Amino acid sequence: MKYVIGVDLGGTTTSVALFKNNIGLIKQNVLPTEADKGIDYILTKISLALIKLIEEYRIKKHNILGVGFGSPGPLNIKNGIVFNCPNLKGWKNVPLKKLMESKTGLPVFIENDANAAALGEWRKGSGQGVRNMLFVTLGTGIGGGLIINNQLYSGKDDAGGEIGHMTLFPDGIKCNCGNFGCIEMYASATGIVRRTKEALKSGKKSILSVFGNNFTSKDVYCAALKKDKLAFEIMADTGKYLGIIFSSIASLLDLDMIVVGGNVSNAGETLLRPIRKEVQARVMYPANKVKIIKARLGANAGVIGAACTVLEKL
Amino acid sequence: MKYVIGVDLGGTTTSVALFKNNIGLIKQNVLPTEADKGIDYILTKISLALIKLIEEYRIKKHNILGVGFGSPGPLNIKNGIVFNCPNLKGWKNVPLKKLMESKTGLPVFIENDANAAALGEWRKGSGQGVRNMLFVTLGTGIGGGLIINNQLYSGKDDAGGEIGHMTLFPDGIKCNCGNFGCIEMYASATGIVRRTKEALKSGKKSILSVFGNNFTSKDVYCAALKKDKLAFEIMADTGKYLGIIFSSIASLLDLDMIVVGGNVSNAGETLLRPIRKEVQARVMYPANKVKIIKARLGANAGVIGAACTVLEKL
Repeated sequence: MKYVIGVDLGGTTTSVALFKNNIGLIKQNVLPTEADKGIDYILTKISLALIKLIEEYRIKKHNILGVGFGSPGPLNIKNGIVFNCPNLKGWKNVPLKKLMESKTGLPVFIENDANAAALGEWRKGSGQGVRNMLFVTLGTGIGGGLIINNQLYSGKDDAGGEIGHMTLFPDGIKCNCGNFGCIEMYASATGIVRRTKEALKSGKKSILSVFGNNFTSKDVYCAALKKDKLAFEIMADTGKYLGIIFSSIASLLDLDMIVVGGNVSNAGETLLRPIRKEVQARVMYPANKVKIIKARLGANAGVIGAACTVLEKL
Repeated sequence: MKYVIGVDLGGTTTSVALFKNNIGLIKQNVLPTEADKGIDYILTKISLALIKLIEEYRIKKHNILGVGFGSPGPLNIKNGIVFNCPNLKGWKNVPLKKLMESKTGLPVFIENDANAAALGEWRKGSGQGVRNMLFVTLGTGIGGGLIINNQLYSGKDDAGGEIGHMTLFPDGIKCNCGNFGCIEMYASATGIVRRTKEALKSGKKSILSVFGNNFTSKDVYCAALKKDKLAFEIMADTGKYLGIIFSSIASLLDLDMIVVGGNVSNAGETLLRPIRKEVQARVMYPANKVKIIKARLGANAGVIGAACTVLEKL
């Protein structure tokens, strides 16, 4: 019996999980990342957690095929270096693969976290058996990954799949990336909350005003489900905005499927219906046959996909 | 010695060319398409032209590896069927592969014309040796093709590469395809002429007004080269618009190169400079390292690429 380990490093929590080599989950532990404690602390904690998992199941190291490590930030897969992580203080040119290999004595394969999640949804989630697929994760920001011709697509510098920084409105509001009008500024959880607050400020009525200025994107889509007019409009516009970007991608890539994940995807049909409507209005046959569906693995897409990375690389 | 034939079927003219199997050109003939005379007439004429070429060089049929046929319109490569060609009257569900094989007695491989041109620029033009590349052709409309992981990318229904119908302005003017604000409506030859006419109508001064209402996109970029203020602005905006779309594609695909072809690309740096400026302003490192250069094969990209199709398929 052979085994695989997945790690999904996040700004707040980190998942470490042990899998059979068919990516059947044996056990998953979720740790606080404690990003402020520095690189060495974080990586030592993760290493100890995964060694504890191995020992708990009395697995010999030579039966572990490898550790797949999903990390935020631009990175170089081949060299195993993470260039920087905006959410992890002090992470600049971290030789993640080398550090983790010396701490664990196991082969380590690194991958961008959104790309790992795309791989997870493709191998074990909503995208199984599909040839060309986009995975989009709608959270604080918007990330994504592409499966092209039955393979995770990386691009020239492992930076492919950055759908969040595609331009929705050429003269739109400024994004942290430097560009103007990025879809991330409008359709991420952050964008949804910002647009809702602006609408309330401009005098629109909504049940959300009971929260004062303190609500989340989940509150918005829950209010939309309860027929709150403003919240419904905000979610319809969110779907419309995503639909515009998905239309461009569908025209360019003639995809089989777009899988929508991340916290905001829990809005379900309230979000997916306006997305599909916009794509049908904008995309020509036969590219308009693209299926647009909800991700299935939830927050576990990243750690499952990280484990899948090992099998892809072997 | 083995040989390959390329055919590039256009709305006005059709190229038929004989190549050595390293795609070295032996001879090319350009025929008027005479689109109004119907499918059988057109295909018979093309077949006779290519048989004449073979006989002229006394080549035995069994030394011809195949005919690569670039055709407009959505099509199915495997079945060899062209679904429809807006520029060719009566072309609906044409079994092009079968018809051409029975007329010539040679194996025929069909490909979308813009995809064939992308293949040509990649194998024999500006994109040689590059792994991930977008080819864009700026003519009456805007077409394109993608090379992904050293392979022509087709998508689920051979409809990939339709960059012309990516959305530039979500609430922009209506396109023939049904979508609003397609880049094709602004940055194609047609779009350039339309925008220039609108500017003249609104009272802007330009040397182009001597043409009355009768000028081409070439007149516009020639006027721009001669420092005509309005023409220069029009070309700068054209580059800006293309730059916005290229930025989204670069963020999504982290490409090595974007090759700009078609008649409008003869504007050269007048167009390429504002494209590059926009991409640098909008795209994050490292995806902003994408090279943006002019196509090299001109109008021959299609017929050269059609011949290359044969080698890719064998």
